[in-house]
Amino acid sequence: MKTVLKGRTREVVIDTDGPVIIIGESINPTRRRKLVSTLEAGDFGYLLELAESQINAGAEVLDVNVGYPGVDDVRLLPAAVMAIQERFDVPLCIDSPNPAAIEAALKAARGKCLINSVNGKEASLSGILPLARDHGAAIIGLCMDDDGITNDPGKRLAIAEKIIERSVKTGVCEEDIVIDPLAMAVSAEPMACMTTLETIKLVRQNLGLNITIGASNISFGLPGRETLNAAFMAICIQNGLTCPIANPEKITSTVLATDLIMGRDDFAVRFIMHFQDQTR
Amino acid sequence: MKTVLKGRTREVVIDTDGPVIIIGESINPTRRRKLVSTLEAGDFGYLLELAESQINAGAEVLDVNVGYPGVDDVRLLPAAVMAIQERFDVPLCIDSPNPAAIEAALKAARGKCLINSVNGKEASLSGILPLARDHGAAIIGLCMDDDGITNDPGKRLAIAEKIIERSVKTGVCEEDIVIDPLAMAVSAEPMACMTTLETIKLVRQNLGLNITIGASNISFGLPGRETLNAAFMAICIQNGLTCPIANPEKITSTVLATDLIMGRDDFAVRFIMHFQDQTR
Repeated sequence: MKTVLKGRTREVVIDTDGPVIIIGESINPTRRRKLVSTLEAGDFGYLLELAESQINAGAEVLDVNVGYPGVDDVRLLPAAVMAIQERFDVPLCIDSPNPAAIEAALKAARGKCLINSVNGKEASLSGILPLARDHGAAIIGLCMDDDGITNDPGKRLAIAEKIIERSVKTGVCEEDIVIDPLAMAVSAEPMACMTTLETIKLVRQNLGLNITIGASNISFGLPGRETLNAAFMAICIQNGLTCPIANPEKITSTVLATDLIMGRDDFAVRFIMHFQDQTR
Repeated sequence: MKTVLKGRTREVVIDTDGPVIIIGESINPTRRRKLVSTLEAGDFGYLLELAESQINAGAEVLDVNVGYPGVDDVRLLPAAVMAIQERFDVPLCIDSPNPAAIEAALKAARGKCLINSVNGKEASLSGILPLARDHGAAIIGLCMDDDGITNDPGKRLAIAEKIIERSVKTGVCEEDIVIDPLAMAVSAEPMACMTTLETIKLVRQNLGLNITIGASNISFGLPGRETLNAAFMAICIQNGLTCPIANPEKITSTVLATDLIMGRDDFAVRFIMHFQDQTR
């Protein structure tokens, strides 16, 4: 199954047979308040720095999130989208819980975007799916609904199935749906990673769609985050994860290593070139 | 399934349900010629340094290999074994292709050893298995035979089955057999890792035995070896590897991360303590 995204001219194909596509997570004010203050001052320098460093580090799609308490994201999200695509020919992942901000960003964007995200809540399904259809965007379907987040992989799969059904009914085709099984902090819930992993397996086996996760969440509150994130990334990819949302500056080498392990990098050409680039 | 090894007094249980037991690989002259020259001079200082640093880094069993062209391992292997166990209460993995050296080492060793290794060759089966029986040792069964190393996971499984059959017939019980599916350099053979992984899955599903691999082999000749080894380690553990032979100073954090991911480290206690020890 292939999900095609587009920048101004460049096409990025997320393929369930790999290789893995990294969606860069760093354009997000959560740990970068400077992003909000600079954007509000009409200064795109820091935003473009974050975009460039992630592209250089191996991101092929960029997640764009400007959400922060008090921020007018209906104004800022499209502005950020335009600034990035003016400079870089890269497909974007439009990240907001606000349908009005998503709509404004989709109008401003070029190519074919990925919407982050639709979930199983009625308000989300009816609010976001028509936008995806009208703007020809792909969607991330998040495995949660009006009942919240379940720890039962089978129920997460059922939510994914509901999102797919409603998407197709609305006019978004199946290959344009990327499922996010949800990754939660393992420090709070010992089975959190296994629940994510079991859901990945179920989605892979039963739905055959592309799969993303916010891969850095699992290590929240723990030491050794890079080691833990790397181990989880490798395992998830081997079980069906195809387009993680992550920090490419930390995870690209592990992603390339896993593609190599899985026989998707003959004679290690991509892996070796990555390390050559790093030492240049 | 549990494989029990013993030091002077300490028992180490390798359990197919985890957590993972690391067998330290560093007592091996291949990249440490100094080990041979010091041992031949009757100087055990360097050997004990290698033992201590691996134990401190998280190894619970130590592989002991003194093989090198021209070395009299029938004399040196038991000497090394005695020196280590005089100082450290740790089970040993006796690593030699020479049945006479293995026998001498088993006689010198205390507790219950693991023999590295028996393979499917007739000479190996008839030469090593009686030693294991007579000394109450466990064995590593290497998935190769008189036809060499096959790239077919099903054939590797068949060799494992032959080793098990002969072991049981000789008087070595099933829980004392640890299977090594073989890990080869992925730089030379693009499907090398997948062949190992598929064999791990087959052994896990069909035989239910403990599984080891020489985990550092896959990255031979490549840059980014630690990243590649870590990704492969995590994937192999998730699929059934329970007692890798590896360098604990490089891999313990990934092994603990994977146990945590697999729900074998409630509230991340072992993982957090490992990082606290490191910063002390």
